[in-house]
Amino acid sequence: MNAEIIAIGSELLTPFRQDTNSLHVTGKLNELGIAVDFKTVVGDRLSDLVTVAHSAFSRADIIVFMGGLGPTEDDLTREAVAEALGLGLNRDPEICEWLRNLFASRGYQMAENNLRQADVVQGAEVLKNSRGTAPGQFLQAPFEGKNKIVMLLPGPPHEILPMFDDQCMERLKKIVPVHYMATRVLKVAMIGESQVDRRAAPIYKPHTDVQTTILAHGGEVQLHLRAQAESLEEAQRKVDSVVSKLEDEFDDSVFSAQGETLEQIVGYYLQMRGASLAVAESCTGGMLAQRITSVSGSSRYFLGGAVVYDNSIKSMLTEVPPLMIKEHGAVSKQVAAALAEGIREGCKASFGIGITGIAGPTGGTDEKPVGLVYHGLADGNETQVIERRFPGDRERIRYWATTQALDMLRRKLM
Amino acid sequence: MNAEIIAIGSELLTPFRQDTNSLHVTGKLNELGIAVDFKTVVGDRLSDLVTVAHSAFSRADIIVFMGGLGPTEDDLTREAVAEALGLGLNRDPEICEWLRNLFASRGYQMAENNLRQADVVQGAEVLKNSRGTAPGQFLQAPFEGKNKIVMLLPGPPHEILPMFDDQCMERLKKIVPVHYMATRVLKVAMIGESQVDRRAAPIYKPHTDVQTTILAHGGEVQLHLRAQAESLEEAQRKVDSVVSKLEDEFDDSVFSAQGETLEQIVGYYLQMRGASLAVAESCTGGMLAQRITSVSGSSRYFLGGAVVYDNSIKSMLTEVPPLMIKEHGAVSKQVAAALAEGIREGCKASFGIGITGIAGPTGGTDEKPVGLVYHGLADGNETQVIERRFPGDRERIRYWATTQALDMLRRKLM
Repeated sequence: MNAEIIAIGSELLTPFRQDTNSLHVTGKLNELGIAVDFKTVVGDRLSDLVTVAHSAFSRADIIVFMGGLGPTEDDLTREAVAEALGLGLNRDPEICEWLRNLFASRGYQMAENNLRQADVVQGAEVLKNSRGTAPGQFLQAPFEGKNKIVMLLPGPPHEILPMFDDQCMERLKKIVPVHYMATRVLKVAMIGESQVDRRAAPIYKPHTDVQTTILAHGGEVQLHLRAQAESLEEAQRKVDSVVSKLEDEFDDSVFSAQGETLEQIVGYYLQMRGASLAVAESCTGGMLAQRITSVSGSSRYFLGGAVVYDNSIKSMLTEVPPLMIKEHGAVSKQVAAALAEGIREGCKASFGIGITGIAGPTGGTDEKPVGLVYHGLADGNETQVIERRFPGDRERIRYWATTQALDMLRRKLM
Repeated sequence: MNAEIIAIGSELLTPFRQDTNSLHVTGKLNELGIAVDFKTVVGDRLSDLVTVAHSAFSRADIIVFMGGLGPTEDDLTREAVAEALGLGLNRDPEICEWLRNLFASRGYQMAENNLRQADVVQGAEVLKNSRGTAPGQFLQAPFEGKNKIVMLLPGPPHEILPMFDDQCMERLKKIVPVHYMATRVLKVAMIGESQVDRRAAPIYKPHTDVQTTILAHGGEVQLHLRAQAESLEEAQRKVDSVVSKLEDEFDDSVFSAQGETLEQIVGYYLQMRGASLAVAESCTGGMLAQRITSVSGSSRYFLGGAVVYDNSIKSMLTEVPPLMIKEHGAVSKQVAAALAEGIREGCKASFGIGITGIAGPTGGTDEKPVGLVYHGLADGNETQVIERRFPGDRERIRYWATTQALDMLRRKLM
């Protein structure tokens, strides 16, 4: 069975706003073994809506309409679906009463146009909306001789998401054939997406019953694996067999096999060791500390950090000798090491990280181009420095640099 | 004239990935007075692609295909468009040679399947791709008796966005009737979205020729205004008249009228004054410094900062007296002020900001709940502290707190 998701609303056709509900709904449909084959965004014009509904009914088994169920004259999803299916609309007296009571309980006089929300497509079940005034609708109806499952759901995320999870999923489970699905996410640090794909493809491609998706962001590549089977054990077995081969291939580049973030993993390791961390950042300007402290409970291992943007501050907060900066430059192996050592000692931490580099877009030279970053890691015995040249713009370079620093510490802690 | 944007790729039908190119392309088309009436996402199956292309050609004047132009057998956009328009595909010898040279210059042997990227729909102009191997295509062709403008563009954002801006826009400008469009963005800090809308609606609603969109994020509300007219002056006049009324209404809560970010505005003011800034952050953990340093050139006014996560570090890096922390607690008015003063003095900056609070989800008490944040601002003469209670989750509280701190400094500098 396949599905089409249709998001309705002229604001979703501006440069400013985007449908996000469909990601959640897709995940839920996938759990039932239903693939989403089409997504459509359409405005509030009735003729456009009917056209889109027609196309959807002719190419999908399950059609989810999101939005256009409110009280205004722009809310035309009910009319469009009824027209496309050749069905009538009936005003439901129970919903009318519920609406009147709802407004009365809030101390408002109800405007009559609100009753449009009580118009139900012939044969549809009403889905309660506990967070808004527009009820949803769920129906099965024939279109060109085939049975279609059709949902009309409200647009606001806090209304549609609980309605879909609580009311649509249980109805779908009774209708669609049972499939069990198992998923795993493997995360790999500091290897390019194309290289991951080149090495991973020969492993996952032969397993045609496991669906693999590769995603990359800021120095991290995620491999999402998914399999369906008659039993959950069987689905899990399929996924796990591919995961274990991928783990062998990528070995210690795999930092997470259950979806954890790199900053969470580094936090686990530090806590397990009873160790603490302090960081001194130049070009990343606080981004490394911000990522580390985005983890709730990070105060158990993260002591603090210095953002040493100006050279004088490098000397002041982390005791980097001014002469060293003069001799080697602020962006140098030596300063990265001195930053790591200085912040470790200053904060009395087990580990110190220092980052210095050129995030651009200006400030690069032939010798020290934009993207050049040095990452230092000090543990009191030895100080390691990694030099990298990252591609991309300022934000991308900064993000890669923080990922490299976190990965360096992770490998040290392993 | 209206447009449909079609994003192609099975990964865009997973719960993990979303088309974002269409937002940029929509903005550019809107500049030419072209409304986007439909957006569609479709996978890599040829029959699905042809179906979607057919629907699009029958309901839109301008059709933008994004993705599916690569070398693999899953890249079928060229075939689908040719089939839907009833046109042939010709292998272009110039592109073949360009591809061979491109691979040779990188020291690779070219796999033969790369030549699929040289297949051009009959009558199409080739659009150069300076950042990838898949050229774009631009053509005008009849469909059911009407002229259609069709673009085939690559999927990766760093390939499609410059190609659209540099090559598609100039071609479109020659074809579509001229409309002039003026836009303005007003940004307001630290007022809730519903309050902004309540105050702004009576002002913009009567101007039906100006389109207004309100967006909110992390303590900032944006009012996007847009108008079209026969001349640029006329369009600008329409927008400006609404903008000036909105500026009167929101007064000094408006921090930007040309789209600048809050961190850019603070940077301008600091530079204008020849002043410098240092920050000490507890609950925001580096996020404030990271936002400030996200602006290229921020090294001219930002000296550095301390992330004082552990209490001992508060005393060490910013000289907050341990007794003060004991007496008032780390999350207190006094500590916020001491952090601001300590970092200002330590870094010899004109201004010092200190933030301390409870970002949650744990660590709150009845007296000091999750979301309580103190923001201190010291200038050497006086130290101001603002107490706020922010709603939401950890990331949202942290972001609001950094916005409040930046806005506090902005008001001081005004």
